[in-house]
Amino acid sequence: MHNPSVPVLSARADLHNSILSYGEAEEASIRDRSAYLVDLVLHRLKGDWAAGDRLTEVCNYALGAPGKYFRPILLLESAAAVGGDLHQVMPAAAGTEGAHLASLMHDDIIDGDELRRGMPAVHAKYSQADAIVGGDALIFYLFAALATCAANGVEAQRIVLAMGKAAKAGAELCQGQMMEEEIRQNYDSRVTSYLRMIENKTAALFRAACSIGGTLGGGSAEEADALARYGTGLGIAFQIQDDLLPYLSTAEETGKPHSSDLANRRLTLPFLLCRAAAGPELAAELDDLINSEGDLEDRHLRLAALLTRHGAVTRAAEEARRYAADAIDALVPLPQSPSRQSLEYFAKAAVSRCR
Amino acid sequence: MHNPSVPVLSARADLHNSILSYGEAEEASIRDRSAYLVDLVLHRLKGDWAAGDRLTEVCNYALGAPGKYFRPILLLESAAAVGGDLHQVMPAAAGTEGAHLASLMHDDIIDGDELRRGMPAVHAKYSQADAIVGGDALIFYLFAALATCAANGVEAQRIVLAMGKAAKAGAELCQGQMMEEEIRQNYDSRVTSYLRMIENKTAALFRAACSIGGTLGGGSAEEADALARYGTGLGIAFQIQDDLLPYLSTAEETGKPHSSDLANRRLTLPFLLCRAAAGPELAAELDDLINSEGDLEDRHLRLAALLTRHGAVTRAAEEARRYAADAIDALVPLPQSPSRQSLEYFAKAAVSRCR
Repeated sequence: MHNPSVPVLSARADLHNSILSYGEAEEASIRDRSAYLVDLVLHRLKGDWAAGDRLTEVCNYALGAPGKYFRPILLLESAAAVGGDLHQVMPAAAGTEGAHLASLMHDDIIDGDELRRGMPAVHAKYSQADAIVGGDALIFYLFAALATCAANGVEAQRIVLAMGKAAKAGAELCQGQMMEEEIRQNYDSRVTSYLRMIENKTAALFRAACSIGGTLGGGSAEEADALARYGTGLGIAFQIQDDLLPYLSTAEETGKPHSSDLANRRLTLPFLLCRAAAGPELAAELDDLINSEGDLEDRHLRLAALLTRHGAVTRAAEEARRYAADAIDALVPLPQSPSRQSLEYFAKAAVSRCR
Repeated sequence: MHNPSVPVLSARADLHNSILSYGEAEEASIRDRSAYLVDLVLHRLKGDWAAGDRLTEVCNYALGAPGKYFRPILLLESAAAVGGDLHQVMPAAAGTEGAHLASLMHDDIIDGDELRRGMPAVHAKYSQADAIVGGDALIFYLFAALATCAANGVEAQRIVLAMGKAAKAGAELCQGQMMEEEIRQNYDSRVTSYLRMIENKTAALFRAACSIGGTLGGGSAEEADALARYGTGLGIAFQIQDDLLPYLSTAEETGKPHSSDLANRRLTLPFLLCRAAAGPELAAELDDLINSEGDLEDRHLRLAALLTRHGAVTRAAEEARRYAADAIDALVPLPQSPSRQSLEYFAKAAVSRCR
């Protein structure tokens, strides 16, 4: 399936080169810094979920799965990018990971996905009831964590602003999940519906993490807005890349079966781009692959070959890169700093990852 | 089933007399005031959920079912009891109803209850996915609503305190739902486990509504604490009474089948009290009713007769009244006002209602 002659792989090589243009030492330093921040976040999460009851066990299991901790890192780097103190905003960073995991736990129930990050999903490991209630607890955790920032010396007015942003992102996230369901059911969904959906489902929490980081970190409204724009572009780019993974990576790398999108009728950008540009013959072939009852893995391989051959995988990858570039542009109003450099790096790395 | 000679009915008559001791005009005035507050809350909820998308439709359906709107009223009366302005705290009041409905929506999925307030539960009317995501949205709504209070002139510091209380109540609520599951599975559950469970599952949000009302309404920390104690006692009393309803009312009055608790193995106070005091013969009979596969409605009727005959329904009703009395005592530090009088009335009414 991974034919080295297909254009997308060259696109990936370009991006890889673009990241390498940082210089290996620079990239290593950004990676070290991120690893250090992840350790801090994990430490906070472990402390906050230390009790021995069942609710804690369920949430601990979800929080402990090897993740990217992307949202907390974004919040921390955004706070640092406006001169904020990492310790002060750490609870909020951990909280955003909680809200993110809540949406994954609930999503996995809805989609019937049994695997997450290569491990049994929470509802598969425990029960559906545990995954529903555990997810709810992790949503409340975000706001408990925001309240804790007051004890760390963050101004109450900034915390109230952050709460408003977090609550808005949560509503958008739910909106995005509903739209995903509608797209699944409405076969004529367009590329624009998909983009609006992922802006809600994924970019909203990225946007909120960055903007909350800027606000709690003491930034101006303009800085918080710039960070919000950065988070939006990054989130959309990240989600498009995520949806590209079944066509770019092995199932071992992504930690869940490639045919999961097909099994769930999740129509993503490569498919929608290909379908929108298809003549009657190709359209019929695509429709058949989505609607037939044949072997999932086989259908996935045929779909991947089709989307790759017709350039849809490449075009989707180009879209992702465009949003990543928008994200980097949005950072211009911020002063140069290692944190801003990390944020720029994340935007490039988001669209070149294969897991 | 409702034999006028069983003691519980005399107990209900006593409470009814106790409420009537208010004087009919006084009681009517409290009811009018509550009806007026419910109108204000409904107006706010309708305005906040006015968009035409699917998420709004689902949440609107949940919010529109004929409810008691008890938590918003408690928040408003608590705010007024410390001299607060109803308009300023109205968003928070509406928000507590959202969080309450979220827990009902998620609970109904977990319990497989198809009816709620006499109407199809959200997951039955729409889908499980809609009920999960809609519930999540209503949790976020609580915090969006709290943030809105800033625009109404509530001090940021008070809002941050309120957010912490709301988030803590949410965590306790989830804890309570987990405990309920454990009690369901662990046959030897005791009365103390049950009381701890309902303190989390029900009283936590009552406590938070009262305490948040006191805080946002401008009350002192002592006043907010008194209101929190009131809410705790009221919540426990309310939940015990709720669990008594299948033994006191008709299914039409409660809006769901009486055998629902039995179908879900929900062991409530009358059962646990009876089982704890039972000799071997009665214990075996009770166990058989819970564990047998026989006709649900028939088992419920036999269980109700048994619990009534052995005085367990009466003893549970007495427990409820004890907590209601505690709630009223907790209000002593507050100045006399129509709002305090309403709160006192609610505590008495909570344990005399039959729906």
